[in-house]
Amino acid sequence: MNAPIRLLIHGATGRMGQALLWLAAQAPADFTVVAAVSRKPSQRVVDGVPQFGASELAGVPAFDVAIDFSLAEAFDRILALCEGRGVALVTGTTGLDDTQRDALRAASARIPVLWASNFSLGVAVLADLVERAARALPGWDCDIVEAHHAGKRDAPSGTALSLGAAAGQGGASPRYASLRAGDIVGEHTVQFTTAGERIELVHRAGNRDIFARGALHAASRLGTRAPGLYRLADLLD
Amino acid sequence: MNAPIRLLIHGATGRMGQALLWLAAQAPADFTVVAAVSRKPSQRVVDGVPQFGASELAGVPAFDVAIDFSLAEAFDRILALCEGRGVALVTGTTGLDDTQRDALRAASARIPVLWASNFSLGVAVLADLVERAARALPGWDCDIVEAHHAGKRDAPSGTALSLGAAAGQGGASPRYASLRAGDIVGEHTVQFTTAGERIELVHRAGNRDIFARGALHAASRLGTRAPGLYRLADLLD
Amino acid sequence: MNAPIRLLIHGATGRMGQALLWLAAQAPADFTVVAAVSRKPSQRVVDGVPQFGASELAGVPAFDVAIDFSLAEAFDRILALCEGRGVALVTGTTGLDDTQRDALRAASARIPVLWASNFSLGVAVLADLVERAARALPGWDCDIVEAHHAGKRDAPSGTALSLGAAAGQGGASPRYASLRAGDIVGEHTVQFTTAGERIELVHRAGNRDIFARGALHAASRLGTRAPGLYRLADLLD
Amino acid sequence: MNAPIRLLIHGATGRMGQALLWLAAQAPADFTVVAAVSRKPSQRVVDGVPQFGASELAGVPAFDVAIDFSLAEAFDRILALCEGRGVALVTGTTGLDDTQRDALRAASARIPVLWASNFSLGVAVLADLVERAARALPGWDCDIVEAHHAGKRDAPSGTALSLGAAAGQGGASPRYASLRAGDIVGEHTVQFTTAGERIELVHRAGNRDIFARGALHAASRLGTRAPGLYRLADLLD
Repeated sequence: MNAPIRLLIHGATGRMGQALLWLAAQAPADFTVVAAVSRKPSQRVVDGVPQFGASELAGVPAFDVAIDFSLAEAFDRILALCEGRGVALVTGTTGLDDTQRDALRAASARIPVLWASNFSLGVAVLADLVERAARALPGWDCDIVEAHHAGKRDAPSGTALSLGAAAGQGGASPRYASLRAGDIVGEHTVQFTTAGERIELVHRAGNRDIFARGALHAASRLGTRAPGLYRLADLLD
Repeated sequence: MNAPIRLLIHGATGRMGQALLWLAAQAPADFTVVAAVSRKPSQRVVDGVPQFGASELAGVPAFDVAIDFSLAEAFDRILALCEGRGVALVTGTTGLDDTQRDALRAASARIPVLWASNFSLGVAVLADLVERAARALPGWDCDIVEAHHAGKRDAPSGTALSLGAAAGQGGASPRYASLRAGDIVGEHTVQFTTAGERIELVHRAGNRDIFARGALHAASRLGTRAPGLYRLADLLD
Repeated sequence: MNAPIRLLIHGATGRMGQALLWLAAQAPADFTVVAAVSRKPSQRVVDGVPQFGASELAGVPAFDVAIDFSLAEAFDRILALCEGRGVALVTGTTGLDDTQRDALRAASARIPVLWASNFSLGVAVLADLVERAARALPGWDCDIVEAHHAGKRDAPSGTALSLGAAAGQGGASPRYASLRAGDIVGEHTVQFTTAGERIELVHRAGNRDIFARGALHAASRLGTRAPGLYRLADLLD
Repeated sequence: MNAPIRLLIHGATGRMGQALLWLAAQAPADFTVVAAVSRKPSQRVVDGVPQFGASELAGVPAFDVAIDFSLAEAFDRILALCEGRGVALVTGTTGLDDTQRDALRAASARIPVLWASNFSLGVAVLADLVERAARALPGWDCDIVEAHHAGKRDAPSGTALSLGAAAGQGGASPRYASLRAGDIVGEHTVQFTTAGERIELVHRAGNRDIFARGALHAASRLGTRAPGLYRLADLLD
């Protein structure tokens, strides 16, 4: 049996950070959070987890993987820390600019890094299946329908677009339709149709915990990988 | 046990006319086709069914209901025949102009008439359910998704619009999404969503026979009704 | 504008009781909780809501409707209170014995009462649609598929059986299939199939708040009704 | 551009045989039927296709692939012919006994052979996706729901069982539910569920032509393969 993976959670007070702390605490045989980093706190321990302020990053203890769901302006320092320590970085921070994306790519020559817009394990599996189906079904029509809560502004969703990119990798040219209704967490259907038959590949998210679960799953796989830029789909079993 | 209903099929050589003749022949206890009317044939008998040309309409034998799937230019004479004979008319002929629609409405003072864009019994039932659901679920979001074969040009489908009208009667304001793929005969989903729950009302058409079946069903009900302008939903059991 | 409905919540410390208190507090224009009754507390006020112990029932202030999600052994006293005060009772308490059910029926001669196993508004609407569809579609096959979390023991679910009863009222003879997987809150599909077409009526529950919402909806309608035994479907708009 | 593939159709008067002849005739650039073999006919030409009786098999012209949808008692001679000529065999004949299955396996040392219970291309792709999903989602619940026409006796369907076998290859332990209703051609849903999310992989067959299409697809791929025992999934692009 292996020792638990030592995690640094960056952006520990955000919604994802809180969910990560809660879920990691449920699985003490798999994970130990050695540092919960957020903007303000000075070093102390909450619920058994050592807390660090952003300015105290240099002093955090040894860790195996950092999970970062913070803000774009905090991204540079967590990337620098991981590079400096030579450890893996899982990040879902959005709004990175081109310079930051270049820095991430450059860092991947030295450490394993993963950036994703959607950390649902199911969505990552679905994207893999979609690419494979598209490749096996040349000439079939491909349609993507997504549904989200009424408050979501952008359409199609980022996840729909990345499923569409997967379909495109397999040679399909997807079309999109978007529904906005109630408080739907997120549903994506990729449909392949030809004369007389149809395949529908569907993902339904029931709650938001699944994104934290997926990030932990990624962390448990990424730490032992060679340096490189990974996608969630690369870390499926 | 009642005698079979005596039918006149107007537009007997079209796709719907042929399907009507075939299905009526399967149910001789329920239906007898006493006249199959089409543009050219002079009076003779094919497969036991007397054939008449358009110019021979005046001479057709007594019938209980006319079913008309012909062209707009042939509509006036079948309406006049039904009015003259005082018998019911079931019609799915499209492209009627305002004058013809007015004539149909005027005729409904004297004979029972039914015009529909979709003769699927299931769609008629769905429209009824949609109106009822919309009324029972004020404030829920309403979305209509329809899928048809890749060759279908108009979107949303006429059926989707009439389902939307039913939802509107119940107080909902539906939004539409359309998919065009493969050879899908026709699928309509009306979805009502609120916080924490959702109702989906779906109709799937597997083949086109169902439209002929629905027209025969309507004919079997309409003949004994009082004069008036009926919808398919009025003739459900 | 009407005054808020004065509620008594019986079983206030249970999961449903807590959800009712929380949701009622979100809608102060519609509801005022004048008494939260649970086993132990002696009279005091928590979060603005007066608390009463079971033994203090006689002293609760005037209210318009009681909502009861307690235990069978506490049922007799809340029913007696409502009868004595002449006010409506909404109850979802399970495990009532025959004597208690008879008492509920007898009380309905004097006060409006509603008992339901599932307070989802959507399920109530679905049951109504199912009965109507079954009546309109004689001879169509009827199948009910339900899915719930892996921990659910009974199958088919009580809700599936009551949807089946609604289908039976409409003349259908449903068959059942049950899935137990993951943490699915509850999904029910009633499917009507005939040659060439199919109707699917689906309800999806995303979380458990909807049951509390439905009970509040019932309470807001039941208070002004004539004495009688009501079903949730009777209180749809 | 390659020359059309020369086909022998064995069991040419059966439903599948007729569908194969009709579909091959629609694609003359891809396929030429050089022999349509059935029990009785003596050698002649129908619709441009040379017909042969079972007893005339030895005299059929050179062909690239045989497609066999005949009866178990006719299987031995088509297998012997293909082995003798050294050409590929695609067969969907059911009811083979153990000796025949052994013979098929033995023949695969010398010629490429493919036997399948379901020639839908979509189902073959689905089976591949199901195995892949099962492997990527250890610990998720796996359920298979299939629906077929009311006349289908066996349950679960052979296709459901083979999808279940694919899931099993990936490490899942599927449970089955079966619906029998109307004239549903065939629908299969494989569902993977875990806390908070779900993947549904669905295949819908709209008509039976797809099985003939799949057999032609297999024939177009199998002829150029090395000797061996293939599954339909091995011949996806």
